[in-house]
Amino acid sequence: MDILADIATTVLSQLQKPTLAFLLGGMMLAALGSKLEVPTPVYKFVVLLLLLKVGLGAGISIREADLVSLAVPAAAAALTGIAIVLLGSRSLARLRGVSPMDGMATVGLFGAVSASTLAAAMAMLDADGIAYEGFIGALYPFMDIAALVTAILMAKMAQARSRNVIPQNGAATMALGGTGSADNDGPSENRTLVRGILTDTLQSGAISALLLGIAIGVLGRPEAVYASFYEPLFRGLLSILMLVMGMEAWSRLSELRKVAHAYVLYGLSAPLVHGAIGFGLGMIAHQLTGFSAGGIVLLAVMAASSSDISGPPTMRGALPEANPSAYVGASTGLGTPVAILSIPLWIWLADLFIGL
Amino acid sequence: MDILADIATTVLSQLQKPTLAFLLGGMMLAALGSKLEVPTPVYKFVVLLLLLKVGLGAGISIREADLVSLAVPAAAAALTGIAIVLLGSRSLARLRGVSPMDGMATVGLFGAVSASTLAAAMAMLDADGIAYEGFIGALYPFMDIAALVTAILMAKMAQARSRNVIPQNGAATMALGGTGSADNDGPSENRTLVRGILTDTLQSGAISALLLGIAIGVLGRPEAVYASFYEPLFRGLLSILMLVMGMEAWSRLSELRKVAHAYVLYGLSAPLVHGAIGFGLGMIAHQLTGFSAGGIVLLAVMAASSSDISGPPTMRGALPEANPSAYVGASTGLGTPVAILSIPLWIWLADLFIGL
Amino acid sequence: MDILADIATTVLSQLQKPTLAFLLGGMMLAALGSKLEVPTPVYKFVVLLLLLKVGLGAGISIREADLVSLAVPAAAAALTGIAIVLLGSRSLARLRGVSPMDGMATVGLFGAVSASTLAAAMAMLDADGIAYEGFIGALYPFMDIAALVTAILMAKMAQARSRNVIPQNGAATMALGGTGSADNDGPSENRTLVRGILTDTLQSGAISALLLGIAIGVLGRPEAVYASFYEPLFRGLLSILMLVMGMEAWSRLSELRKVAHAYVLYGLSAPLVHGAIGFGLGMIAHQLTGFSAGGIVLLAVMAASSSDISGPPTMRGALPEANPSAYVGASTGLGTPVAILSIPLWIWLADLFIGL
Repeated sequence: MDILADIATTVLSQLQKPTLAFLLGGMMLAALGSKLEVPTPVYKFVVLLLLLKVGLGAGISIREADLVSLAVPAAAAALTGIAIVLLGSRSLARLRGVSPMDGMATVGLFGAVSASTLAAAMAMLDADGIAYEGFIGALYPFMDIAALVTAILMAKMAQARSRNVIPQNGAATMALGGTGSADNDGPSENRTLVRGILTDTLQSGAISALLLGIAIGVLGRPEAVYASFYEPLFRGLLSILMLVMGMEAWSRLSELRKVAHAYVLYGLSAPLVHGAIGFGLGMIAHQLTGFSAGGIVLLAVMAASSSDISGPPTMRGALPEANPSAYVGASTGLGTPVAILSIPLWIWLADLFIGL
Repeated sequence: MDILADIATTVLSQLQKPTLAFLLGGMMLAALGSKLEVPTPVYKFVVLLLLLKVGLGAGISIREADLVSLAVPAAAAALTGIAIVLLGSRSLARLRGVSPMDGMATVGLFGAVSASTLAAAMAMLDADGIAYEGFIGALYPFMDIAALVTAILMAKMAQARSRNVIPQNGAATMALGGTGSADNDGPSENRTLVRGILTDTLQSGAISALLLGIAIGVLGRPEAVYASFYEPLFRGLLSILMLVMGMEAWSRLSELRKVAHAYVLYGLSAPLVHGAIGFGLGMIAHQLTGFSAGGIVLLAVMAASSSDISGPPTMRGALPEANPSAYVGASTGLGTPVAILSIPLWIWLADLFIGL
Repeated sequence: MDILADIATTVLSQLQKPTLAFLLGGMMLAALGSKLEVPTPVYKFVVLLLLLKVGLGAGISIREADLVSLAVPAAAAALTGIAIVLLGSRSLARLRGVSPMDGMATVGLFGAVSASTLAAAMAMLDADGIAYEGFIGALYPFMDIAALVTAILMAKMAQARSRNVIPQNGAATMALGGTGSADNDGPSENRTLVRGILTDTLQSGAISALLLGIAIGVLGRPEAVYASFYEPLFRGLLSILMLVMGMEAWSRLSELRKVAHAYVLYGLSAPLVHGAIGFGLGMIAHQLTGFSAGGIVLLAVMAASSSDISGPPTMRGALPEANPSAYVGASTGLGTPVAILSIPLWIWLADLFIGL
């Protein structure tokens, strides 16, 4: 009964917290025809600060972690992120009517991690006296970046291929930097394409802000500026991001009318499937390195959760064509509540398989 | 003597505080031909944050108030705001040489509320041990929004009418969405006009930011982001606003040379007349619901005060043609000091009529 | 040995601190071809806030100082700043291949003051129990502004003269507001030129933001907004400035290939020469007013240090043609570490000449 009360409280506070309130507020403004706008240069800067903050925080966590014991769980986390995206590319993104761009952006967010859901799970483990490794906070950037980069890469490849296929002549392949004829669609050209898109993705403002933050967090000593600037401004800047996302989501909501059921189905079921993947890979890390049962629970929660912070600005920067109604709606509206509600399931499974 | 010392201290600190210092600094820069500028997109964002903050604070106060006992005083506050604007539209805005746009913007600011003057009055009542209702802080948005929206509405109607009158042919009425001929200037067309302008006003960036903040404050739980972001940034963003207002005010000061006496007369006398209106409506609320004598004093102070925070950015957003030298000069330069000096008058009147 | 350990710690923390980390991060991003960008309107606002903050802090220090005892040391500080710039204009800026614009911007930064180096010196004196005047913090704006304004003035004069010289006909002098013929290159025309450029410099956004901050700091009471807004945001905004400076520095690094040795030579030797100038003028102030030995050390450290905060944004605003690779590289990369390492030298000299 205590767990049920915990869940109810967590869900309620999730629904009342500013993130969702500003998202709904933005949608309401757009619905009422408000002329309020956040100027584009300022919005770009808000996104830059948010991503730098996420990167700096992750980098500081990695620097403070014990790198040797981090290695195997970090690999498991990155693999989980990639596996979720690959799975989504063969399920949601293939459903009829779902645009590959919207589908992959959504899948990328479900592969990325919600720091607040992770914190809720840690609080529940702490309350139950279940131990876990201190470096868990340093795992999430590995899953986060792996999932986001894989999803962006696959979305851009799908876009490039569809552009390539439609005209079906040499002129189109030239635009992709191909040197051979249109018939020569072999593996070498494909590799050039992947390399070009990967470079593009890593050089994009969003991903390079994340990576820059991580690099400075790991190699520098940005704790003072992190604590005095990036951390205190974070919630407020996030409220602005959510306001803009809400306004844009409303204006593009109608595009989804015919495929809403696909996103609802995915949003409700994916967290459970993803959590199981994370749980399974955590079990393997347990066998290999003695990764704790609490750690397995938290890895499952990371996999089950979908990104509410790093994901939306990254997707908006890297895949501007993708519809935020799809990816923000599915992740913040459905994925996050389901992920929070699933926490007790992973605790129960860990108790069943290993004992807590 | 203590009261005199209190007044002197209050006025002095008013003159030394950053709001006025940055306003004068901006005027000085403009006078000296400085090329310093706050880029427009950033300035728009500063205004947006200020208005969201004012709205959130008001919304949180309303949520925390007892809605039943709030109802009658809130209606009195809204009525006071509207009454002040109607009065001003028949006095200041009709004076020869005063542009209706500048006049209504000024009148709107005098109808709106200065939170810092209200705080000074509360401090004086606290020092004298005079009790007042805890929900007083939740009253000011009612007076504020009522006055600002009424003033903007009337300014835009005057503008629309003058545009309509000058050409006096069918083409002009078409621009206002009229379907009849130019002669058909009946009440139905007028109602369409009012509805159009009211919609425009509520959808304007400034008013919708205020209303969004109130909605999130009442329905959400934005306390954390309010305390970590909007509240700490407020004074600083206000200093930037005042800097820009000062520069603009200087550049448009010469426009007022011929009508300065009208604004001076209004700035010095209006706070006393408005305070009397607030006092009277507070007396009625006292008869109806037992509204306290301290509450009446604070309602009079709210009515006497003119907006130094929510008003200027709202007017600049909603009525960009209005001259800030007129409305900021009259309110911050004259109205606010007079309102602060009048506080002991309302305390003395409350003691006379009800007893403290 | 303790002093050596102190030095090592200071240098190490200097290299790890966010200022340099973000500068290097920006260079790395540019080198890797990242598309990350800080939008120009936001960047201009960041610079404005930084300069307002520096000015406000300086103004508050001056207001809190005893103006009578401040007068002679303040004159000594301003003279030191001007002397350093004049010296640099005859050394670095005359070296073959060094553009006068880049050279004067660099010299201006070496004349200006690093607040963090000054703070490090104060900490070392405190640790050794050496006394110094309380108003020292109020001296640095005098040296800072004197050096920056002199350097900008000389850079613009050099630019105007070179433009004037090349065409050598009446049309060119007309562009400078000259009324006489091209031959009349006498002192009166020169005076007009100086006056025009000085007005331009003082009216430039960067210098007027600095002066506005000082004026409000001296005449107003901006402590509350300074403590709640400008001070807490400072480090973070500086990290953004350094990021932009780093990206720009990388893109213009190749311009310096042929003159790098000149900047290295100047960056390594100038702090020692400048420190000696400051030390000498401090000795004169000691003879005239009994300026303390600790004060002389701090004046020498101010002279030896080069600006890492007020300087780069000022130069970028006032001399946009100057190459930040030159001035930021020479000052932050070489001048600051040498200045920090030279602190014990000035302590030793003060002990030798006056006794501590």
